[in-house]
Amino acid sequence: MTPTIKTVRCALSVPTVVDISDAINNTIDNKFTYLICPLFHPRFKREHIAGGLKHQELPMSRSDLDLNAECWQNYVVGHLSKFYNCDSEDEMTRKNAIIGLSEELRFVAHLNLTNFVIPIRNGNIENLARTLNNNLMNKLALYNILIRVPMHMDRLNIEIENFPARPKCDTPWNWWQKMRTLCEESTRLGLALELTNDLPEDEEEIHRWFAEPVRMVIIPTSLFLTNKSGFPVLSKAHQKFINKFLSLDIDFVIEGANRHSEKGMSKYFEYLNFLYKNYQLSNNTTNTYKFTKGYEDCLQNPLQPLMDNLESQVYEVFEKDPIKYAQYKKAVAEALCDRVSDEEKTSKETVIMVVGAGRGPLVKAAMQAAADTERKVKLFAIEKNPNAINTLLNLKHSLWGDKVTIIAKDMRDWYPTEKADILVSELLGSIGDNELSPECLDGAQRLLKDDGISIPYRYRSFIAPVQSYKIYSEVKRCKDYEHPHEAPYVVLLNNHCRIDDEKFLFEFTHPNRAEKIDNNRYGKLDFQAKFDATLHGFGGYFDSHLYKDVDISITPSTHSPDMISWFPMFFPLKNPINIKKNDTITVHFWRCVSSKQVWYEWCVTSPSNSVIHNPNGRTYWIGLH
Amino acid sequence: MTPTIKTVRCALSVPTVVDISDAINNTIDNKFTYLICPLFHPRFKREHIAGGLKHQELPMSRSDLDLNAECWQNYVVGHLSKFYNCDSEDEMTRKNAIIGLSEELRFVAHLNLTNFVIPIRNGNIENLARTLNNNLMNKLALYNILIRVPMHMDRLNIEIENFPARPKCDTPWNWWQKMRTLCEESTRLGLALELTNDLPEDEEEIHRWFAEPVRMVIIPTSLFLTNKSGFPVLSKAHQKFINKFLSLDIDFVIEGANRHSEKGMSKYFEYLNFLYKNYQLSNNTTNTYKFTKGYEDCLQNPLQPLMDNLESQVYEVFEKDPIKYAQYKKAVAEALCDRVSDEEKTSKETVIMVVGAGRGPLVKAAMQAAADTERKVKLFAIEKNPNAINTLLNLKHSLWGDKVTIIAKDMRDWYPTEKADILVSELLGSIGDNELSPECLDGAQRLLKDDGISIPYRYRSFIAPVQSYKIYSEVKRCKDYEHPHEAPYVVLLNNHCRIDDEKFLFEFTHPNRAEKIDNNRYGKLDFQAKFDATLHGFGGYFDSHLYKDVDISITPSTHSPDMISWFPMFFPLKNPINIKKNDTITVHFWRCVSSKQVWYEWCVTSPSNSVIHNPNGRTYWIGLH
Repeated sequence: MTPTIKTVRCALSVPTVVDISDAINNTIDNKFTYLICPLFHPRFKREHIAGGLKHQELPMSRSDLDLNAECWQNYVVGHLSKFYNCDSEDEMTRKNAIIGLSEELRFVAHLNLTNFVIPIRNGNIENLARTLNNNLMNKLALYNILIRVPMHMDRLNIEIENFPARPKCDTPWNWWQKMRTLCEESTRLGLALELTNDLPEDEEEIHRWFAEPVRMVIIPTSLFLTNKSGFPVLSKAHQKFINKFLSLDIDFVIEGANRHSEKGMSKYFEYLNFLYKNYQLSNNTTNTYKFTKGYEDCLQNPLQPLMDNLESQVYEVFEKDPIKYAQYKKAVAEALCDRVSDEEKTSKETVIMVVGAGRGPLVKAAMQAAADTERKVKLFAIEKNPNAINTLLNLKHSLWGDKVTIIAKDMRDWYPTEKADILVSELLGSIGDNELSPECLDGAQRLLKDDGISIPYRYRSFIAPVQSYKIYSEVKRCKDYEHPHEAPYVVLLNNHCRIDDEKFLFEFTHPNRAEKIDNNRYGKLDFQAKFDATLHGFGGYFDSHLYKDVDISITPSTHSPDMISWFPMFFPLKNPINIKKNDTITVHFWRCVSSKQVWYEWCVTSPSNSVIHNPNGRTYWIGLH
Repeated sequence: MTPTIKTVRCALSVPTVVDISDAINNTIDNKFTYLICPLFHPRFKREHIAGGLKHQELPMSRSDLDLNAECWQNYVVGHLSKFYNCDSEDEMTRKNAIIGLSEELRFVAHLNLTNFVIPIRNGNIENLARTLNNNLMNKLALYNILIRVPMHMDRLNIEIENFPARPKCDTPWNWWQKMRTLCEESTRLGLALELTNDLPEDEEEIHRWFAEPVRMVIIPTSLFLTNKSGFPVLSKAHQKFINKFLSLDIDFVIEGANRHSEKGMSKYFEYLNFLYKNYQLSNNTTNTYKFTKGYEDCLQNPLQPLMDNLESQVYEVFEKDPIKYAQYKKAVAEALCDRVSDEEKTSKETVIMVVGAGRGPLVKAAMQAAADTERKVKLFAIEKNPNAINTLLNLKHSLWGDKVTIIAKDMRDWYPTEKADILVSELLGSIGDNELSPECLDGAQRLLKDDGISIPYRYRSFIAPVQSYKIYSEVKRCKDYEHPHEAPYVVLLNNHCRIDDEKFLFEFTHPNRAEKIDNNRYGKLDFQAKFDATLHGFGGYFDSHLYKDVDISITPSTHSPDMISWFPMFFPLKNPINIKKNDTITVHFWRCVSSKQVWYEWCVTSPSNSVIHNPNGRTYWIGLH
């Protein structure tokens, strides 16, 4: 099934409108999705306080009757008509501005528009923020407020605007961060990011925007170059930026005079649609896209395969991973060859036990490895889920026959007469140990000969400090727990950025021949922030060594290409922590084991202290029985 | 009624106990209130992990049968038996320590002790904090954990302990702050503060301890000097410190060898009791003490005298203020003399209207002022509360006669035929305008002649950044609102400190002759932190100028002595903010007025951003009708 190629959502933004109906027709004729325009026209300009109410018999704007309700909603996004300086030092200017802004906001609600764009020019935004916050808290109004900021403002711009002495932390991102914090990270607040001629020198700063709730990228026509045929095109750097944001499902906006007038405004739309089409062709046909599309940034509670029995559908999804089982097959094949030399291969039999066999994919991989290497094997498939046992028995009767013995038991409770040369399992969760692979394999290693091989023989967890307004908002809305910020979530991290690269946290190896096995762990890690950021939590990942150097990984820097079985984990913080560039971020993680359950606790102690999350596993734990 | 002189609560702390029953008898014989001692004896020392369980047949400590349950509870506070290094770099040391500590904590719960003292020696406390936090979260255990820290550690001490390169922020207060933050500011966590020979050079740092939940001050006997008669006494500096903490109702603890052995241990107790007695004699007999004792740090919701009618008891308390009405009398007297010269005093009558007369204290003050100055007055008492009108009418018939006319109306709705020379009111709340004095007086100023006098003619609010673990915890527990941190509270701030001095916020003047009166206000204030601190909120105060320089004030730096009618206001923050010494604390306050109500909103934007509290007055507002 080939995915359909979709059309880009791209709006046209105009500074002024004479006849709104004509303007929309023009927008649609030029193929744009909708129109962005000021709702108020300068001819209706009023002085609210100083001038008294002398204009009160004049309308404040054009009539809502100019369009029908459906048309307003679908084809118009409002833009603030002028810069109201709600934070002027001058009290009268401030009061007038707040009244003017409030009037526009009321009109947006009256027209029932979905979005309203409000630009900010610097970090003095407290009174603006208060006015917006009061509107965002109003449950009757439903529109989103999109804060418009330039994505970058270099020193030159700042000097031109007469702010020679601005501190380094006064960047558009800091303005935005202040706005969203003051407004209690409202989900009705989004970003309209204005693409600038210069991009940040530091690529990390571009990534940081990617961790914000960008709803629109506004592209001024002045950024477009002209190609040999006279058509508008963007520079390579801008293209790269657009490509990155295409995965966020946002809208684009073309704004400014037509600088390629002989070609018509529609050419700008067509160019963006061309980029979108190419993006889809190169991405939407991949296996990863097929399996992961739609899961971006959605929180899932981690599986509890030991305590609960997995459903058929879950098995089916995992079995489709094209990489994982190829790696397992390779690992088993290499182990078989190390175990039995070419000379012995007709005489010596290798006992392979697959513990947690599920619906049999590892059994298949092991049989294939045996066939490929021409080794004789005796296979046991151990599985505790009676529903999966049914599948295995059907496979045995239809396909495998005597080569495979099915054992319907918890691996920790089976006492066979012979031991395994190779113990194969796939019990790993998003950070490796979180589905209790250590406890299961420790319990099952009795089954292994003293010189036997465990596949995998090692797995490690990794974590990275993460900023993500989107995921933090989702956690806040989660109703599954009393303390939703104390549970880790499995989530395909998309609308996020890593404030520093991931680091190694915990390690488990098998078989574990320690006299007294202790699977409690404590780790303290120091990260260094690559840029000013808001720390919302930690991404969790793992890698696993199956046999020798055959491995699988979902760790960002070593991710196995196209492997789709695992999404990362996200460990939230109760309260976001403000981070300055180069700050040390110190985090402590505990893996705690009691007789009944396993859980994690975590806290931050630099640059400031958080609470210890999930004490006693009160919110999240994984059952051992 | 003279208040009873109470005995100081002072415990004896000993490093080791042979026979617990004897030790308690000795404690009581020496007049101490209870005994602090280790629960575990070194002879029961066990190695938990490395040494295996070889000691498991030995008891871990003395038997609980040594005392009866009541005795354990009333006479014993446990002290950790040794320093368990739960945060050692060495994994085995760490694990052993955590097991040892957990064992002691379980035994404390078993004995049902009320308090358990745990010393910390530096800021590496994450594993200790996690262990304690897990116990604090356990709802079955009820004991308090008192973290023992030295109140000061100068550079010399630090160097002795081999930490020459410690950063400046690594003080005992920072260790404690880390502990309480990691443990989610648990109300079961308190402080056992150890008095040190050297006190902090900076007196502000002593104040900062005063804002923490200090439950005990431990005084080593080595700090005592010997007076001429051979008795133990403390230095002036230490006495001053003790005196400050006496208002917190904490326990004192004497610890260490008897250095005045010819006098017996009881002399230490007697000295502290002597300090306590003196403290009580100089404080508990004051008027302020009489009216405020018991209200310290208790949250009250602000009165709404405009919307609700006050109760008789409330009037009674306010009428007892010995200062307020004396100042009003003085103000009225001065105004009368300015209005009517000595020559005119027999001929010219002054019309005085008391708006919001309540049960008549201002009427009495005005009559007294007229008598004192021998001026002729015509008095009107305007009051909207029908119950208070009853009192006024009774007073008129029994006492005042024709001199006073009673008007049973809202001052905003009364239209008399003559106007007032002097309009007297007492409509002020803890920050001046919060009981809607501005709106009431603006509505009543029609009653005043063009050249008439308003008493008061001005009031101003002041705020100061405040640290108070105690009040923050109280706010968190408040069940009156969905967002308890968004409401201001009236509270006698005791267990708190100001991170910087108060600053002027809003001002109102009367009569207000502006063409269009606007009682909305916006203010932005910058404070500078005097020390590292945790910002929990803002204290709110007011001063009021009645007439010329006759004023009343509850502002810390100008508080009218002995005036008890108002407690300060506390504006909390949703989340405490960490502050470094010299940080700029920027706060924004809004007074917002709609047709129905008045409310405040506030936020912090430096050193980091808070949310905007109380948007639209969703949690707290004052009704105009």
